Amino acid sequence: MALPNYDVLLRSVARLLRAGAADNLLKLLQRQHPVDVAYIFRHLADRDRRTAFDLLAGRDRRLAMEGLSELDPETGASLLTYRAPEEVARLLGELPADDAAPLIKHLPEGFSDQVRELIRQKKEVGSLLEHADRTAGRIMNPNIFALPETATAGEAVAALQRSAGLEMVFYLYIIDDERHLVGVTSLRRLLLVPPDTPLRQFMATEVIRAHADMDQEDAARLVASYNLLAIPVVDDQNKLVGTITVDDVIDVIKDETTEDIQKLGGLEALDEPYTQTPFWTLVKKRGRWLVVLFLGEMLTATAMGYFEEEIARAVVLALFVPLVISSGGNSGSQAASLMIRAFAVGEVTVPDWWRVMRRELLAGAALGALLGTIGLLRVTLWQQFFGTYGTHWVLVGLTVTLSLIGVVLWGTVAGSMLPFVMKRIGADPATSSAPFVATLVDVTGLVIYFSVAALVMRGTLL
Amino acid sequence: MALPNYDVLLRSVARLLRAGAADNLLKLLQRQHPVDVAYIFRHLADRDRRTAFDLLAGRDRRLAMEGLSELDPETGASLLTYRAPEEVARLLGELPADDAAPLIKHLPEGFSDQVRELIRQKKEVGSLLEHADRTAGRIMNPNIFALPETATAGEAVAALQRSAGLEMVFYLYIIDDERHLVGVTSLRRLLLVPPDTPLRQFMATEVIRAHADMDQEDAARLVASYNLLAIPVVDDQNKLVGTITVDDVIDVIKDETTEDIQKLGGLEALDEPYTQTPFWTLVKKRGRWLVVLFLGEMLTATAMGYFEEEIARAVVLALFVPLVISSGGNSGSQAASLMIRAFAVGEVTVPDWWRVMRRELLAGAALGALLGTIGLLRVTLWQQFFGTYGTHWVLVGLTVTLSLIGVVLWGTVAGSMLPFVMKRIGADPATSSAPFVATLVDVTGLVIYFSVAALVMRGTLL
Repeated sequence: MALPNYDVLLRSVARLLRAGAADNLLKLLQRQHPVDVAYIFRHLADRDRRTAFDLLAGRDRRLAMEGLSELDPETGASLLTYRAPEEVARLLGELPADDAAPLIKHLPEGFSDQVRELIRQKKEVGSLLEHADRTAGRIMNPNIFALPETATAGEAVAALQRSAGLEMVFYLYIIDDERHLVGVTSLRRLLLVPPDTPLRQFMATEVIRAHADMDQEDAARLVASYNLLAIPVVDDQNKLVGTITVDDVIDVIKDETTEDIQKLGGLEALDEPYTQTPFWTLVKKRGRWLVVLFLGEMLTATAMGYFEEEIARAVVLALFVPLVISSGGNSGSQAASLMIRAFAVGEVTVPDWWRVMRRELLAGAALGALLGTIGLLRVTLWQQFFGTYGTHWVLVGLTVTLSLIGVVLWGTVAGSMLPFVMKRIGADPATSSAPFVATLVDVTGLVIYFSVAALVMRGTLL
Repeated sequence: MALPNYDVLLRSVARLLRAGAADNLLKLLQRQHPVDVAYIFRHLADRDRRTAFDLLAGRDRRLAMEGLSELDPETGASLLTYRAPEEVARLLGELPADDAAPLIKHLPEGFSDQVRELIRQKKEVGSLLEHADRTAGRIMNPNIFALPETATAGEAVAALQRSAGLEMVFYLYIIDDERHLVGVTSLRRLLLVPPDTPLRQFMATEVIRAHADMDQEDAARLVASYNLLAIPVVDDQNKLVGTITVDDVIDVIKDETTEDIQKLGGLEALDEPYTQTPFWTLVKKRGRWLVVLFLGEMLTATAMGYFEEEIARAVVLALFVPLVISSGGNSGSQAASLMIRAFAVGEVTVPDWWRVMRRELLAGAALGALLGTIGLLRVTLWQQFFGTYGTHWVLVGLTVTLSLIGVVLWGTVAGSMLPFVMKRIGADPATSSAPFVATLVDVTGLVIYFSVAALVMRGTLL
């Protein structure tokens, strides 16, 4: 296997660092894939990381920066700040623009302006930062390999041979005199036609493309669903401004998933990895939603207050409150997760709500009946063995069973419909998190439970 | 934009179908990308779908099958079952093996054996099905473009030009006499060296590879983290048996995410899209977890039973039960989601537990103090305005505040540690779903709440 034994690797690096064996360390690092160099950087202590990076940056600038670009941008930027702006600009010049942009963004403010200015004099990283966050324009690579439609296949191959500096060339985009995107062809195709054929003659003119101001998630979805390796990015005038490659798409998919899962857990998306998020940011992003949910949940205390007399008369009612309302919350959480994911993969859209509703009504009824039966069994068994619920245990059992059916049914329907409501009002369906649904269902669940109790127990216990 | 207006497109197709205008319909379909043909298939009624597919299968077998392969395999297979096994084998021959395998799997049993036998006589789809589900071997494409190390760059280009039938060629894998994987090179590189250079001289020998019996998720992770377009798959003897391309990797990432989100919502992973899952499967996959959670949650009734006398004496205690325990559940759900995702992206591993624990202890204390303060405020305000909580309202407020701090702290720690426990015992961290954590925290939350109450109210209300 070509994959290194990471433990052994890290230990060797640490040993060479301690011994100050710069040449051997350099040789060891140069044998590694950039991703593994990043792994080494990530797992070294701060001081050792700087030593290793400095060594590499002096001797093998390209590898140093390739390793650095795989780190999170904050750590990466911290390794650059001790240098002169000119050298940082030179180092960043080794990276494709879309990898350099986040590093520049994380440099200290005045410093990053200086570096940006130096780079702008030579390259186009600056233009990336002109696009809004989370757009296709922000994640695209502005160094495009494009040729005029009048070029021939042979000329294209020659141009390709000269272009060794470019990240990855998957498709050859073809433009007219004014940089409008007019066609595309693949490297394979170039090899299949006689060298003197003009590109115009065999290029495909139906090009799937992304707009620079498109949401990055939509651009990623295009690449994924059309099985592309890259997608060209155009501006309002259909002029080619960049490309997004499939490796960036995978990163977008991962980031968006992280965001969805965090929202689903009932907190704001962190934007940065958990371990990199400052403590107070972490507390703030969780606290805000916790408070909102807490304020909502306060209605349970109000609802319970209305039934205070009933509880005083039949304390047994209070015993089942957590069981009944949590069953509603759990079934709601299931339904909401199903719908949120179905929205995310484009399996359902808002007009499907009625079809989903019918299905979930039936599912909710079935699940409610299931839990209701178990609830009844529980009350009956405890009564037989311990006499827990007194002479009116049948009424207690009936109340628990009927409320469970009602609450689970309601939880299922509310949980499945909330993502539709969110989508309809323009919010992210993932906002209808498990805790959000549970809070909603808790309050209504209490009302259902005590109403059923009032109905069943009137004249006896109540 | 090259993206079609889907509404217009579907209406045109429907109109042509109704008019029986086969030639025009064929022309329209042939202008579409296979992904859009699949879109059309997906949105037609069953009968129309068959008509459209039959038309296309008769005239443009390749496009018909490319469109079909983008559908879910069940629907796709249903379009094939009305044909002779020989014709189905011929149609499936248009697809790369990894796209054909799921279709074959979904054919009726006897029929699929016949088709498989017919295909095996010519091709290698059969071998895919020999690998276990969810392994690299199962999702790989067994039609590999590989050349011996003695071939020259010029011969490789020529071989490439002849290989038009292969799905996508990204890298050229190089093998020795016994099919052992010995090197790799890129198409670009082939163009850069003189045509008579042997591959052996310029190939890279450090090849990142996947084992056929490796978990598909691990293989996907290799492709994603090394920014590869494809990864070669080898058997135990390091013999090349297939490749996994980046488009399959994106599918794996999507499927695994769906599974994580469904587990996070407290149900078993569905395996199939929500809309394709039969009703009773849906109920079963949700019901099983709901019952487990319900049985766990029953302990709340038991716990409440222990405090029945306290509740009878101070009914006001019951009013805050849902508020207090749900706050624990919500903070636990937040912490669990954060950890589950951190595990999924490889950001934390089991040995990090203590570092996370320290951080979450502090976060839990801060969040508990926040909610506790709001809780105290609520009791004070309601008391001032409505006199809700009687003469001992200070004790009520103190009980609520202290329990909130305790319960939120406990919820945060339990929620963050449960994924570590799961991972440690070899289970999927995503199993520690929001409902699971909430159930765990509900029971202990009640104990915390009533213990605090006993402490604070002894001699007065209790």
